[in-house]
Amino acid sequence: MALLIRGGTVVDANQTYRADVLCENGVIVAIGEGLDAPSGAEVVDAGGQYVMPGGIDPHTHMELPFMGTVASEDFFTGTAAGLAGGTTSIIDFVIPNPKQPLMEAFNDWRGWSEKAAADYGFHVAVTWWDESVYRDMGTLVHEHGVSSFKHFMAYKNAIMADDEILVNSFSRALELGALPTVHAENGELVFRLQRKLIAKGMTGPEFHPLSRPPEVEGEAANRAIRIAQVLGVPVYVVHVSAKDALDAIARARSEGQRVFGEVLAGHLVIDDSVYRDKDWDRAAAHVMSPPFRPKHHQDALWAGLAAGHLQTTATDHCCFCASQKAMGRDDFTKIPNGTGGVEDRMSVIWHHGVNTGRLTPNEFVKVTSTNAAQIFNLYPRKGAVAVGSDADLVVWDPQATRTISVKTHHQNVDANIFEGMTVRGVAAHTVSQGKLVWTDGDLRAERGAGRYLKRPPNPAYFEATRLLNQSKEPVAVDRPRASVATAA
Amino acid sequence: MALLIRGGTVVDANQTYRADVLCENGVIVAIGEGLDAPSGAEVVDAGGQYVMPGGIDPHTHMELPFMGTVASEDFFTGTAAGLAGGTTSIIDFVIPNPKQPLMEAFNDWRGWSEKAAADYGFHVAVTWWDESVYRDMGTLVHEHGVSSFKHFMAYKNAIMADDEILVNSFSRALELGALPTVHAENGELVFRLQRKLIAKGMTGPEFHPLSRPPEVEGEAANRAIRIAQVLGVPVYVVHVSAKDALDAIARARSEGQRVFGEVLAGHLVIDDSVYRDKDWDRAAAHVMSPPFRPKHHQDALWAGLAAGHLQTTATDHCCFCASQKAMGRDDFTKIPNGTGGVEDRMSVIWHHGVNTGRLTPNEFVKVTSTNAAQIFNLYPRKGAVAVGSDADLVVWDPQATRTISVKTHHQNVDANIFEGMTVRGVAAHTVSQGKLVWTDGDLRAERGAGRYLKRPPNPAYFEATRLLNQSKEPVAVDRPRASVATAA
Amino acid sequence: MALLIRGGTVVDANQTYRADVLCENGVIVAIGEGLDAPSGAEVVDAGGQYVMPGGIDPHTHMELPFMGTVASEDFFTGTAAGLAGGTTSIIDFVIPNPKQPLMEAFNDWRGWSEKAAADYGFHVAVTWWDESVYRDMGTLVHEHGVSSFKHFMAYKNAIMADDEILVNSFSRALELGALPTVHAENGELVFRLQRKLIAKGMTGPEFHPLSRPPEVEGEAANRAIRIAQVLGVPVYVVHVSAKDALDAIARARSEGQRVFGEVLAGHLVIDDSVYRDKDWDRAAAHVMSPPFRPKHHQDALWAGLAAGHLQTTATDHCCFCASQKAMGRDDFTKIPNGTGGVEDRMSVIWHHGVNTGRLTPNEFVKVTSTNAAQIFNLYPRKGAVAVGSDADLVVWDPQATRTISVKTHHQNVDANIFEGMTVRGVAAHTVSQGKLVWTDGDLRAERGAGRYLKRPPNPAYFEATRLLNQSKEPVAVDRPRASVATAA
Amino acid sequence: MALLIRGGTVVDANQTYRADVLCENGVIVAIGEGLDAPSGAEVVDAGGQYVMPGGIDPHTHMELPFMGTVASEDFFTGTAAGLAGGTTSIIDFVIPNPKQPLMEAFNDWRGWSEKAAADYGFHVAVTWWDESVYRDMGTLVHEHGVSSFKHFMAYKNAIMADDEILVNSFSRALELGALPTVHAENGELVFRLQRKLIAKGMTGPEFHPLSRPPEVEGEAANRAIRIAQVLGVPVYVVHVSAKDALDAIARARSEGQRVFGEVLAGHLVIDDSVYRDKDWDRAAAHVMSPPFRPKHHQDALWAGLAAGHLQTTATDHCCFCASQKAMGRDDFTKIPNGTGGVEDRMSVIWHHGVNTGRLTPNEFVKVTSTNAAQIFNLYPRKGAVAVGSDADLVVWDPQATRTISVKTHHQNVDANIFEGMTVRGVAAHTVSQGKLVWTDGDLRAERGAGRYLKRPPNPAYFEATRLLNQSKEPVAVDRPRASVATAA
Repeated sequence: MALLIRGGTVVDANQTYRADVLCENGVIVAIGEGLDAPSGAEVVDAGGQYVMPGGIDPHTHMELPFMGTVASEDFFTGTAAGLAGGTTSIIDFVIPNPKQPLMEAFNDWRGWSEKAAADYGFHVAVTWWDESVYRDMGTLVHEHGVSSFKHFMAYKNAIMADDEILVNSFSRALELGALPTVHAENGELVFRLQRKLIAKGMTGPEFHPLSRPPEVEGEAANRAIRIAQVLGVPVYVVHVSAKDALDAIARARSEGQRVFGEVLAGHLVIDDSVYRDKDWDRAAAHVMSPPFRPKHHQDALWAGLAAGHLQTTATDHCCFCASQKAMGRDDFTKIPNGTGGVEDRMSVIWHHGVNTGRLTPNEFVKVTSTNAAQIFNLYPRKGAVAVGSDADLVVWDPQATRTISVKTHHQNVDANIFEGMTVRGVAAHTVSQGKLVWTDGDLRAERGAGRYLKRPPNPAYFEATRLLNQSKEPVAVDRPRASVATAA
Repeated sequence: MALLIRGGTVVDANQTYRADVLCENGVIVAIGEGLDAPSGAEVVDAGGQYVMPGGIDPHTHMELPFMGTVASEDFFTGTAAGLAGGTTSIIDFVIPNPKQPLMEAFNDWRGWSEKAAADYGFHVAVTWWDESVYRDMGTLVHEHGVSSFKHFMAYKNAIMADDEILVNSFSRALELGALPTVHAENGELVFRLQRKLIAKGMTGPEFHPLSRPPEVEGEAANRAIRIAQVLGVPVYVVHVSAKDALDAIARARSEGQRVFGEVLAGHLVIDDSVYRDKDWDRAAAHVMSPPFRPKHHQDALWAGLAAGHLQTTATDHCCFCASQKAMGRDDFTKIPNGTGGVEDRMSVIWHHGVNTGRLTPNEFVKVTSTNAAQIFNLYPRKGAVAVGSDADLVVWDPQATRTISVKTHHQNVDANIFEGMTVRGVAAHTVSQGKLVWTDGDLRAERGAGRYLKRPPNPAYFEATRLLNQSKEPVAVDRPRASVATAA
Repeated sequence: MALLIRGGTVVDANQTYRADVLCENGVIVAIGEGLDAPSGAEVVDAGGQYVMPGGIDPHTHMELPFMGTVASEDFFTGTAAGLAGGTTSIIDFVIPNPKQPLMEAFNDWRGWSEKAAADYGFHVAVTWWDESVYRDMGTLVHEHGVSSFKHFMAYKNAIMADDEILVNSFSRALELGALPTVHAENGELVFRLQRKLIAKGMTGPEFHPLSRPPEVEGEAANRAIRIAQVLGVPVYVVHVSAKDALDAIARARSEGQRVFGEVLAGHLVIDDSVYRDKDWDRAAAHVMSPPFRPKHHQDALWAGLAAGHLQTTATDHCCFCASQKAMGRDDFTKIPNGTGGVEDRMSVIWHHGVNTGRLTPNEFVKVTSTNAAQIFNLYPRKGAVAVGSDADLVVWDPQATRTISVKTHHQNVDANIFEGMTVRGVAAHTVSQGKLVWTDGDLRAERGAGRYLKRPPNPAYFEATRLLNQSKEPVAVDRPRASVATAA
Repeated sequence: MALLIRGGTVVDANQTYRADVLCENGVIVAIGEGLDAPSGAEVVDAGGQYVMPGGIDPHTHMELPFMGTVASEDFFTGTAAGLAGGTTSIIDFVIPNPKQPLMEAFNDWRGWSEKAAADYGFHVAVTWWDESVYRDMGTLVHEHGVSSFKHFMAYKNAIMADDEILVNSFSRALELGALPTVHAENGELVFRLQRKLIAKGMTGPEFHPLSRPPEVEGEAANRAIRIAQVLGVPVYVVHVSAKDALDAIARARSEGQRVFGEVLAGHLVIDDSVYRDKDWDRAAAHVMSPPFRPKHHQDALWAGLAAGHLQTTATDHCCFCASQKAMGRDDFTKIPNGTGGVEDRMSVIWHHGVNTGRLTPNEFVKVTSTNAAQIFNLYPRKGAVAVGSDADLVVWDPQATRTISVKTHHQNVDANIFEGMTVRGVAAHTVSQGKLVWTDGDLRAERGAGRYLKRPPNPAYFEATRLLNQSKEPVAVDRPRASVATAA
């Protein structure tokens, strides 16, 4: 069935222009002024609105088993909530337990994800190392379109990757043309600070940010980036929350290194005062890692987006209800880490980014969709308003306002970190695979409609990396035998 | 007449894909695999080749009257040479003498430029200030599509703009939504250093770079950027040649300021040893400002391109023959400043940028064409391979090599700063306004075929700037009358 | 008459040790444990207290004629207030009007300063340029021991030095081995912002800081530093108030340039909220330039002191009473710029610096006394606790507290920017020229007791500068005649 | 017996002045002009020469067992060679094997060092961790005056300290007021690069620097610094060889962190071209870690010294003869790491530092002696020309020249990394414990004359650290019971 979006203004990463957009069979088939609606086509009136690529959230954790419980949001409810906010694709994470074969974990997650309402892909975490991990990374890249691998530098005694694992896995990624990504926090320091605080009886959520200060993030980001530099492989830093980590990225990029950075909607607008909320539940609802930061970090993060040091925005959507958070009532280190946001990211970033002049609408499209599609090799299938691209679109009303609240959101969790925030700029309609799945407040998400996205390695980055490394290949000195003999 | 480019691989700023490109009436009318050639259409075989947007050189000086002579390259020969190298548009400069009305100068240049073989636009320099300049800037923006104004911070006692002029002109540009650009060198210091060297009898071209060291560029770039920051207007720094200036740009961008930077092909690959050439003519042929720099600056500039601190590449094409350069035989300060390159820029940057892995082919398109088109508001007419865009294209042979030489170049000057450099990656065919103007070594440039390009202000940047400034508007304190009375 | 300071702990720039200090005839004659008091000697019990070099305030403006009035504090009252706070020397400024001969102004100031109660020296400002200024600079250095010259980069249409003056004066200072200093604010921007604010009816003191934002200071500091770098002369930046200027200094120092920075006690602890005081008088009492800054600048300044990017602390003591400040009741640009502090600097910096662990007591001595003495070539006569040094000492009680207030201070002005601040660490006794001039709350300052301090150029810096510049002297290329002939 | 140094110019960290210096019983007893020589006193004519504190080399490895052999220079020959060059104290390293009790190793080294000819102290390395190490650190501080502990971040599978050891040891140092020091190289990366190069057959010494590029040093320095920052303890980085590490130090210092950096004479003047020497022995003779670097790092290091980012200079004196180096003939990773220099450091730094204007003579004293004495708490016993200080002095002839060579040096090794370098500025006489031990080419070093130096923690830094950490102590939120109950 066909869908015609009529009368809107197309906004993509490069330009802004008046055009109708016609979708058929899940893809965009025509873009132009005054398009005729095929018979039977559904027509959306986009007058006064922007037609943009649907959002891509490259960092979610649906139904994640973590810290003794399982995230409340599953692949269906989570992707559905995303659609209500204009996000039409997610990239989630397969996280094997240490010693668990990667392929086994991958298959588990593929099973769970079949209920998704929108398209999705996976990064796979490398949490341990042996020959099987080396081999499975190859299988994932070559047969399953997984071209990015995640490394947790925190969570000691659990899924933490130490330098030895990082070096092994980054080296393997280089061979495969895959992109290593890191959760950058020095796990040894976090562990020490947690023990020290708990030992002093400092057990409340207000101590959570003090157990993971900006410096532990800056250190780890710098370390991962330098390891990548020495090995000659690009690297992507997830959820950059602190100026310290951003600076590490900016320094490396300024030296010409290919480093990417992601920032969460939450870190852009929420500060660490939330942990000092008198209400334990509200404070605990904000516990995630890295934590929310003192306010001046936000200015730095926005500037990082504008400067291009950070390319993508995400949510780290990982929901736990109050009853789950309560596991850490007597010990903040036991509060399941995670917050939601997949539904609100687009509005929050538009409101605080575009309405303030920090981002142009085209830059908004870049950081919410196009850049993620290009880095993770979904482009131009995703991230573009172009003939032949998937008909994953959002019709954006830049004048409409809404007040974010747990009472009205579609996320399966009993708190919202943006509670009470009134934003101007909302998804009026969302189109997924050419179908209207969210329209004027009506959510038509379909369980299982989402497709798994294969993402082979990005050939342009792969080739540039190969050429760069080639040019640095060391050369031996031709020494006369005599000289060497002397040394004997 | 139609032109079909068949069998190539389209490379634009965002992606790489196999497709034929059909041009009619000067614009691109179809892109796709297996397009049929209309009857009578000319067909170009692009097998094994890349089809890219034609280059845009945003910094040229054709037939410029300067330092007592006139640049040897005129608008026809210069744009024709550009076509031979894959560059299909230039943006040149109108430079009024102090006290000369801007509109008078603009009309002079418009007259000279009518002979151009390719499309062109103008920046206009602000070299002095009074009410008429204020008024003419408005006329140029509103009636003539000039949306960028140039300021020379060097050339004391000639066209130098001091802080007062900068502040006046930048403020006016802000009102108009136009973009101020600067030639960043501290003119007072250059003047002093020149006088000091000449007084010591240091008159050879080897002293030229010592009269304008990197610090004078870094200082001026920083000054212009901070003035722009305080006034709340974007700014563009032309021909960034030194790490010092690049660092000033990177610092400002990292704080979220909207600053753009341009780098010349020459500064990317040539170092200051050329001024110590034993042959005076060869040394003098390289005299331009800012001068070529010690080698380590080149690495910084390439990294700046990769990082996105610099967005555009240009040539500052401004040719003077040996007989003209000889005016400064006894005093390097009298050597007419300028070098060529409009023909060679694309090959030089491809060879040293793409073949080394510093840039992907898509990034090459950005920095040679698309970014300039977007910043100077020619996009998507220029800078894109898209239906509806001007059919200004280059068919690029990534395997072909050529050796750059004054003996074979099409530039109207008797020296070439890239003399003897063998590059891999050449323009096999160039298409301008849908016509094959360069094909397998045959240059078919047509005198007068070039069109003047109107470039109204970029509305996206204009609006973002307005919103940002609005958010910073100061607020008065409400003081009780009594308090104020006390002060009396 | 002799004075014995018994039982104290000597703290100097390098070490801390128990010792008595014996002073005779104005100088220190013995330091050691268990010294005997000569007969008739006065004895101070310094048990539990620190014996430190008296403070040096290198930036004061006693009885300055400025903005249509004259500073309320004269050389007697001002130096006396300094003694009450432990400061035993000041360096004040001679500020000629444009066109006024430097020597004439110098003689005026020498006359006014004869009433001083403590030793003092002068910097001389270069506010204009001609041959007489060049000549008088030499006279001042060679005959009067003035080895530092000040340049105001702000105050357009009054005493502002533009780039041409800076370049002339810095070059002359280099010849003389003298040290150029700068008040770093871009005067053109300040002028423009003032006009713009006043034009909008924004006339209150809350707009004062907005007319001189941190960026105008950062720009000017960077410019002065780079001019000094290019000319090969050291430079000293007075009253660094903003991270922007500090960063410019840190950058240059990190490149090996000899740059010095001074910070005022006020800028270290007071933020710009004072300008939004509902009480006009209180707001106006804080009007000085550069203005107080948003709070985060303070952390940067303290770090700059700890890192050694900033070497000295001062006050810019320049007092105007409420009736004088009222001149700007309807226009903040007419409020006489200046605040006091010469009495409070030592306590404020001890309290906020040493008590917090930011500075060790030895580092405190460096930044309040020794570094200024070394940079301005008063060492070891001043700035040291050493045999042969002037007996200018402060006996410091690190446990005593006092609350700073206009009600109790000795400064001749009706406001105090530190009003109400309780500090721990006070001057129990002050010794000037071997005499107890402040002891347990009794101020015994003597009108006219102060001596003029000749400060010839610092030979170590002069020689290092000479060697550095020598090593960078350019060399000519030896070109064959034929080659040059060809160029003809 | 007394020694009078007559007619010289005293140069210390703060000033330069004409004075005679009288030494008796190993200490300085008088300083002044025209001192009389006690009867029987030896008199040194220091006319035209500088009298400075003897050099302190805070980083040596005499007779170190390492990589399967033992350093050729023992405590006697090594300290004697130091005396010949003007260095009168060293601080060497006790390096326990993993699992070896610290006290056992300490006692071994104390035994070996008894033969020393000059005074010496020890740092002790923490190469592993358990309760005994924790305890022994306390014993060393409290009973043996060891107040600095070393950590090797490289040498995987040998003495490498991973993050867990660093965090444990730094925390213990904080309790004790001791100073952690680090050899900063990422050992995991070095190990990987070594394996990779050897696997490719790249076995020559030219690959040594490629196995430990600047980035691995920069990473580790940053990591150690950030760990120290988070734990609230000062840190000292030994042998900073790369701009990357220097930048990490400068960043931290600019934020106010108390970080110290040391640079080796070799790294200041020798570049990595030595590893490409056609002569294997000569190349191998330069193998040390971190390796010599590309030339531009030297400028950065000199600037770091001038800026105060680096405070001390050392040699890492650790000598292996050609026959020992030959162990790595077929595998550069087996070449014993180390080079000499204890004899030449002072001349090399004077020649390249003072003669070029980079350092004043006073700054020279700071970086070769006084700063080390203050940081490692030997001041004012060492590092000063002051009454009461040890009579460890060097009489320096700033005009004399010598050419450094293995043929004439006193070091017990068959190569010299400064071979052939002619330096202006040499030790004419060296005084140790009041005795002339080197005079006009006559070395009178006495086996066993050196004394062990106890260095208790520096109380000023300890107290400042305590105050700073105190001010950052976290505070709990006072939550109503109800709120917490809800969470249950």
